[in-house]
Amino acid sequence: MLINCVAYQDGQKLADIPVEEISDYIEKPETFVWVALRDAQPDELSIMQQEFGLHELAVEDARRGHQRPKIEEYGDSLFVVVKTIECRDNDIAIGEVDIFVGDSYVLSARDGGSQQGFLGVRARAEKEPHMLRLGPAFVLYALMDAVVDRYFPVLDMLETELEKIEELIFSQGRQRDNIQRLYELKRKVTIVRHVVSPLMEAVGRLHGGRVPAMCQDTQEYFRDVHDHLHRISSALDTIRDTIATAIQVNLSMVAIEESEVNKRLAAWAAIFAICTAFAGVWGMNFKVMPELEWKYGYPFALSVMVGVCLYLHRRFKKAGWL
Amino acid sequence: MLINCVAYQDGQKLADIPVEEISDYIEKPETFVWVALRDAQPDELSIMQQEFGLHELAVEDARRGHQRPKIEEYGDSLFVVVKTIECRDNDIAIGEVDIFVGDSYVLSARDGGSQQGFLGVRARAEKEPHMLRLGPAFVLYALMDAVVDRYFPVLDMLETELEKIEELIFSQGRQRDNIQRLYELKRKVTIVRHVVSPLMEAVGRLHGGRVPAMCQDTQEYFRDVHDHLHRISSALDTIRDTIATAIQVNLSMVAIEESEVNKRLAAWAAIFAICTAFAGVWGMNFKVMPELEWKYGYPFALSVMVGVCLYLHRRFKKAGWL
Amino acid sequence: MLINCVAYQDGQKLADIPVEEISDYIEKPETFVWVALRDAQPDELSIMQQEFGLHELAVEDARRGHQRPKIEEYGDSLFVVVKTIECRDNDIAIGEVDIFVGDSYVLSARDGGSQQGFLGVRARAEKEPHMLRLGPAFVLYALMDAVVDRYFPVLDMLETELEKIEELIFSQGRQRDNIQRLYELKRKVTIVRHVVSPLMEAVGRLHGGRVPAMCQDTQEYFRDVHDHLHRISSALDTIRDTIATAIQVNLSMVAIEESEVNKRLAAWAAIFAICTAFAGVWGMNFKVMPELEWKYGYPFALSVMVGVCLYLHRRFKKAGWL
Amino acid sequence: MLINCVAYQDGQKLADIPVEEISDYIEKPETFVWVALRDAQPDELSIMQQEFGLHELAVEDARRGHQRPKIEEYGDSLFVVVKTIECRDNDIAIGEVDIFVGDSYVLSARDGGSQQGFLGVRARAEKEPHMLRLGPAFVLYALMDAVVDRYFPVLDMLETELEKIEELIFSQGRQRDNIQRLYELKRKVTIVRHVVSPLMEAVGRLHGGRVPAMCQDTQEYFRDVHDHLHRISSALDTIRDTIATAIQVNLSMVAIEESEVNKRLAAWAAIFAICTAFAGVWGMNFKVMPELEWKYGYPFALSVMVGVCLYLHRRFKKAGWL
Amino acid sequence: MLINCVAYQDGQKLADIPVEEISDYIEKPETFVWVALRDAQPDELSIMQQEFGLHELAVEDARRGHQRPKIEEYGDSLFVVVKTIECRDNDIAIGEVDIFVGDSYVLSARDGGSQQGFLGVRARAEKEPHMLRLGPAFVLYALMDAVVDRYFPVLDMLETELEKIEELIFSQGRQRDNIQRLYELKRKVTIVRHVVSPLMEAVGRLHGGRVPAMCQDTQEYFRDVHDHLHRISSALDTIRDTIATAIQVNLSMVAIEESEVNKRLAAWAAIFAICTAFAGVWGMNFKVMPELEWKYGYPFALSVMVGVCLYLHRRFKKAGWL
Repeated sequence: MLINCVAYQDGQKLADIPVEEISDYIEKPETFVWVALRDAQPDELSIMQQEFGLHELAVEDARRGHQRPKIEEYGDSLFVVVKTIECRDNDIAIGEVDIFVGDSYVLSARDGGSQQGFLGVRARAEKEPHMLRLGPAFVLYALMDAVVDRYFPVLDMLETELEKIEELIFSQGRQRDNIQRLYELKRKVTIVRHVVSPLMEAVGRLHGGRVPAMCQDTQEYFRDVHDHLHRISSALDTIRDTIATAIQVNLSMVAIEESEVNKRLAAWAAIFAICTAFAGVWGMNFKVMPELEWKYGYPFALSVMVGVCLYLHRRFKKAGWL
Repeated sequence: MLINCVAYQDGQKLADIPVEEISDYIEKPETFVWVALRDAQPDELSIMQQEFGLHELAVEDARRGHQRPKIEEYGDSLFVVVKTIECRDNDIAIGEVDIFVGDSYVLSARDGGSQQGFLGVRARAEKEPHMLRLGPAFVLYALMDAVVDRYFPVLDMLETELEKIEELIFSQGRQRDNIQRLYELKRKVTIVRHVVSPLMEAVGRLHGGRVPAMCQDTQEYFRDVHDHLHRISSALDTIRDTIATAIQVNLSMVAIEESEVNKRLAAWAAIFAICTAFAGVWGMNFKVMPELEWKYGYPFALSVMVGVCLYLHRRFKKAGWL
Repeated sequence: MLINCVAYQDGQKLADIPVEEISDYIEKPETFVWVALRDAQPDELSIMQQEFGLHELAVEDARRGHQRPKIEEYGDSLFVVVKTIECRDNDIAIGEVDIFVGDSYVLSARDGGSQQGFLGVRARAEKEPHMLRLGPAFVLYALMDAVVDRYFPVLDMLETELEKIEELIFSQGRQRDNIQRLYELKRKVTIVRHVVSPLMEAVGRLHGGRVPAMCQDTQEYFRDVHDHLHRISSALDTIRDTIATAIQVNLSMVAIEESEVNKRLAAWAAIFAICTAFAGVWGMNFKVMPELEWKYGYPFALSVMVGVCLYLHRRFKKAGWL
Repeated sequence: MLINCVAYQDGQKLADIPVEEISDYIEKPETFVWVALRDAQPDELSIMQQEFGLHELAVEDARRGHQRPKIEEYGDSLFVVVKTIECRDNDIAIGEVDIFVGDSYVLSARDGGSQQGFLGVRARAEKEPHMLRLGPAFVLYALMDAVVDRYFPVLDMLETELEKIEELIFSQGRQRDNIQRLYELKRKVTIVRHVVSPLMEAVGRLHGGRVPAMCQDTQEYFRDVHDHLHRISSALDTIRDTIATAIQVNLSMVAIEESEVNKRLAAWAAIFAICTAFAGVWGMNFKVMPELEWKYGYPFALSVMVGVCLYLHRRFKKAGWL
Repeated sequence: MLINCVAYQDGQKLADIPVEEISDYIEKPETFVWVALRDAQPDELSIMQQEFGLHELAVEDARRGHQRPKIEEYGDSLFVVVKTIECRDNDIAIGEVDIFVGDSYVLSARDGGSQQGFLGVRARAEKEPHMLRLGPAFVLYALMDAVVDRYFPVLDMLETELEKIEELIFSQGRQRDNIQRLYELKRKVTIVRHVVSPLMEAVGRLHGGRVPAMCQDTQEYFRDVHDHLHRISSALDTIRDTIATAIQVNLSMVAIEESEVNKRLAAWAAIFAICTAFAGVWGMNFKVMPELEWKYGYPFALSVMVGVCLYLHRRFKKAGWL
C-alpha cells in the first residue's frame, strides 16, 4: 500500500507525485524522491524496482521478509533492513522496515508488524530544510534514528522487569515463579539482541573507516545512531549477565532454603522423637517399674517430656535451627 | 556414477557430451562444461582429474571424503566442500558435495548421504540464460544456494523441538525426560553447527575483500548465501544458548520440586509424629492417669488427636507446605 | 551554572573574562579559554554553542545527559564524556562530565551527580605553566586524570567488600547473607565496569596509532590515563571472576553443609529410632515375656537402651557423622 | 643417536654420507641433506650446530626439550617443534620432534616419547622424486603430515570414550563413575589440545599471507596440514563442550535421582507411620475402648491397617512416587 | 640503595663509577652504564632522572610502585615494569622491578618484595662479552629472562598443588577441604596471571612487527622470552580451566555422596520403622489376640521382626542402598 510519494528539491518539498513519474524526477539534478510503502505487495515492489532500477536480490529480500538487520551495498545504492520492536500486551512484537537508498531516492517499505508509522519523521524532516538538503542519506538517518529511538522504551521495560524479579529473588517461596520469569525475560532479551546486534555492526560501517560515498557527509549522524545502538547493546549484555547470575543465585537460594527447612525438620523430628521414646519407655510392661506406681508419676512424666522438649526447643532456637 | 555431463555456451545448453570430449570443450571460448557425479568411484575421479587438470590434493580430499566444509583456491580454480543436512527418522543425516570450479568447468560430486540431488538446480539454471551466462561461478552459487536452502527445514525442526521442550520445562515430573531431550538436541545442534560455521567463514571470503577472480562478478550472490548462513548460524547460537540456560533451569526446577516435596514430607511427618506421640503418652502404664478412667476418655483422646492434626494441617496449608 | 571562565596565554592566566567575550579571546594566537559549568541549563549550553561554535549533535548529547563514556571527533574538536564514580552511603553514585575541547578552548560541564568539583585541577594546572603551555589537550588530560584517580578509592571499596565476603564464605550459616552480598557486589562492579570499559577503549585512541592532531604532543599523558584505566579494568575483571567462583563455591558449601546436617540427622534419628524400637518390643502384650517379670528388668532394659545409644553415638562420632 | 644422514640431489638420493661431510654437501647447488636423530645427545647437537650453522637459541631449545609446538624463523632457516601423541595403555604419551630446516638441509631430532619413527616418511618421499625435488620444505611437510596423521587415532579414541560415557549418562547409579571418567577424559583432551592448538596457529603462518620464502612453493601442502589440524581442533572443541554439558547433566541426573529416592522414602515412611499411629491408638490404656472388647477387634484392626496401607500404596503408585 | 653502577665498553667492564660521573660516561661512544638500585628512595630516583634524563611520568611510576607489568616507549628510551613472583611460606610474594633502558644506559630498580637479586645476571653477562656487546637491549633481555625463569618454580608449585587436590577430589568426606583449597589455588593463579599476561602482551611487541629501534638486533631473544611467557600463560589457563571443572565436579560429588547417604538413611529408617510397627501391633490392647497367649509368642514375634529386618537388609544390600 502506497503511503506517500513526494519529490524534494534543495531541501524543499516539490510535490506529491504519482508513481509513474518517479523515474522522471530522479533524473533531475539536486532532486530526490521519497516513497513510503506499507505491507508492500509483490506487484508494487515490481513497479518500484522498475522505476528506481533496484537490484533483483534486494527486491527479492524485501519480498520475502524475515531478513536479519543489515546494510548491503549494491553499486552506488544501499539496501537497509531494520527491525522495529514494540511492547504489546507484555510481549514483544517485531516488525521490519526495508529501505532502498540511492543518490536520488529513498524507498521505505514497512510491514504490518509495527503499529507506529514514520509520518512524524517526514514531518520533522520537512521542517528542517537545511538538513533535508543533505539528501537521501539524511532521510536514511532520520528513519533509522526513529526506529532506534523506539528501542529505548523496550529496553526500559526489560530493565524494569529485571528489577522486579531482583526484588523478589531473595524472598522465600518465590523461586519457581522467579525462575520462570527469568527464563521468559531471557527469551525477550535474546529477541531484542538479535534485532540490535547485527544492526549495530552494520551501522558501524557507515562511519569511521571506508564509508559508502553517499553517506560521507552524514557520518557524524550515523555515528550517533551507532552510539545509541552501542548503549542499548551494552545494557542488554548487562541484563543477560545479570539473568545468568540470577539463575545461579536462585539455585543457591533454593538450596539454602531447603537446607533451612531440613534443619527445622530435623529439629522438630528430634523433639517429637524424644517424646515418643520417653512415652515408649513408660509404656513398657515390666512388672517392676517404681515410677509407674507413684501418685504423681503421670504428671511427673509429662513434666519431664515437656521439660526436655522445651530445653531442646531453646537450644535449637539458639543454634538457629528453629 | 556419472549423472550428466553438459556443455554450455553463452548461457545456452550446447549438448550432452561424452566424458572423453570434455577436454576439447573446455578449451573453446565462452564455453563451459558442467559435470555431475554421484558416489564417484576413484577411477571416475582420476578420469576427471585428467580431463579438467584438477590438483592432486583436491582430488585426494574428494576421494577420501569426510572433509570439513571449505573453499580452497588452487591457482585459478576453486575446490569447494559443502555438506548437506537432512532430517531422516527424527535424526540428522549428513552428506557431502565436492565441487571443483574452474574458468570453464564445474564438477560436482555428491556422496549418497543426501537423498535429494541437484537436477532441479540445473533445470532452473537452464531456464535463466542471462544468469547462466555468468559462467561456472554462477553454477557454483546455484549449487551452494540449493544446499543452504535445505538447511532451513532442519533449523525449523530444531527450533520446533526446542519449543516443545520449553513448554514442558516448568511442568512437574518431566525433568528426566527433558534433560535427555535437551542433551540430544544439543548434540544435533552441534552437528549442524559444524556444517554451517566453516562454510559461513569460507563463503565470507567470496565477497567483500580480496575475492578469487572468477567470483568477481557474482560477489553479490555469494553475499546472499553468506547472509543466509549468517541467519542460520545466529539462530543456532540462540538455540545453544537457550539449551544451556534450559539445562540450568531444569536443575533449578528439580531442586525446587525436591524442596517442595521435602516440605510436604516434613509436614505430613510432623502430623503423624504428633499423633504417635499422643498415643504413646496415653499408652503409658502409670497407675494414676485420671483421663484413662473417664467414660468418654477414648473419644476425647481421639478428638484431641484429630483436632491437633486438623489444626496443623490448616496451618501448613496456609504456609504453603501442603 | 557558570563556575568560572578564564583565558590563558602561554601557560599563564590572562584574566577571568565574561562569557560574551569568549569568542574574541579564542581568536587570539597562543590563547585558550577554559570554561567550567555545573548543572548546565539548556540556554547556557546554547550560548556556549554560539561562542565556541560547537557541533549540534555534541551539544544535544550534553543537554540530554546519560551518555556512555566516549570521545568523539567533530572535525578539529573533541567531545568527551566521562563519568565520575563516588562511594556514598555504601552505594555508588554516578555523575557525568561533558568536555568540549577545541584548539583554543576547553569547556567542561558536570552534572550534580558528583560532589567533588575540579577547582583543584585548575589550581594545580595554573601552578605548572610549562605544562599548561601544552594547551587545551593538557587541560583535557588533567581533567580526565582527576576523574580516573577518583575511581581508585571505589575500586578499593569493592575489593575490601569482596575480601570481607571471602572471609565468611567458608564459615557456616552465612550462606544466605553471603549470596546476597555477592549479588549486590556484582551489581556494583557492573556499574563501575560500564563507566570504565568504554572510557578505556576511547582513551586508547588518544595514543599510539592515529591520534587527533590536538593530542599529538600529549600522547604520553593519555597513555598514562589509559594505563590507569587498564589497571582498574583488569582489577574489575578479577573481582567479577572471583564473584562468579564465589557464588559457585557458596552453592557447594550449602550442599556440603546440608549433607553434613543430613548425616547428623540420620545419626540422631537412628539413635532415637533404636530406643523406640526397643521400648516398643518391651511394650508388647505377650503373656510370656520372662524379662518383664525380672526384678531388675526395668533397669536392665534402660541400661540396654542407653548402652546401645552410647555405642552408636561413639561409632557415628568416629565416622564423622556427629 | 644418528638414525641416518642422506644427501639428495634433484629429487634423487645421492648417498648416505658421514656427518663430517655434511657441510660440504650443503654447499653444492640443488642438493640438500636430510639428517634424522633420535634422543640426540648434547654433543651430537653441537656437531650438527657447527655443520649446519644452526642458531644458538634454537639448539638450546632442542637440547632442553619440553617446548610448546612452534615454528620460528631464524633468518632464512626455520626451527619447528611438533609433538607426537600416542595412545599407550589407555593413557596418552607425548613425544617431541624438533626439526631444523634450511635451504639445503633438514634435521629432525625426535625424543624417545614416541615409539613410531619416520623411516616410512623417508621411504615414501624417496619414491616420489617429483615431490622430493621441491626440497627441504617438502620434507618438512612430509614429516608434519606424518605426525598430524597420527593424531587422528587418538582423536578417535577420545570420541569413542566420550560415546561410551554418553551411553551411561542417563542410566541410574553410574554417576560417580561417569563423573570420574568425564574428568579423566577432559584431562586427556586438554593435553591433546595443548599439542594441536599452538601447532595449528603456527602452520597457519606457512600458507596464505606472508610466508617464509622457503615454503612459497609448498603452501598448498601446508594448507592441507592446517586443514587437518583445524578438523582435529574443532572436534576437540566439540568434545570439550560436550564434556562440560555432560558434567552439568550428570549433576542434574543426580539431583533427579535423589529427588525420586526422596519421594519413595517419603511414601514408604508415610505408610509405616500410619501403621504405627494406628497401633499406637489401639495401644492406649483407656478403660473404655469398645473395639478392644470385640471378638474380631484384632483382625478388624489389622484389616484397617492393611487396608489403609494398600490404599496409600496404590495412590502413591499412581502419583508416580513408588 | 645503590647496588652497583658500572660502565661497559665494547662488551667489557670498564670500571665501577660513582653516580655523579654517569652523565659523562653515557656520552662516550660504544659505552653504556648499567646501574642497579634496590628499594630506591625518591631522592635517589631524582638523581638518576637528572643523570640519565629520564621522563617524568616514568620516574613517577617507579616512585609510586604497584604498576602493572608494561613496556612503554618514551622517545628512544624504554620504561619496563616486570614483577617477580616467589613462593614463600606456601604463599606467593610479588615484587617489582622497574627498568629504564636507553641507548647507553640500563637502570634497574627492584623493591624489597623479592629476596633474590640480579647479581648473577650481571656476572653471567660479564662472562659473555660477545653478547654484552649487543648493548643495553641485551641487558634488558638478560634481566627479563632471569625474572621469567623464576616464574617456572611457581608454576610447578601451582601444578603440584592442583595434582594433590585432584587426587583427593573423588575421595569421600574431603569436599569441604577440597573446595577451600581449590578456591585458594584459584586466587594464587589469578595473582600469577596478572603478572604474566600483561608482560606477555608487552614483550610480544618487542619482536615480529614494529619493534623499538634499540631492540632490533635482539628480537630473537625477546621472542624467546615471549615464548616462555606463552608457555606459562597457557599452563595457567589449563590450571584455571581445571579448577573450574574441579569445582563443578566437587559439587557433583557432594550431591552424589549425599544421595548415597540418603539412600542408606532411607534403608535403615525403613528397617527400624518396620520393627516399631510390628512392636506397635503386638502392643495393642485388644482382648482377643491369640498369639499373645502362645507360650512361644514372644520369641516368635522377635523372630518375625528379626527375620523381616534381615530380609530387608539383604534386599537393600543387593540394591546397593546399604
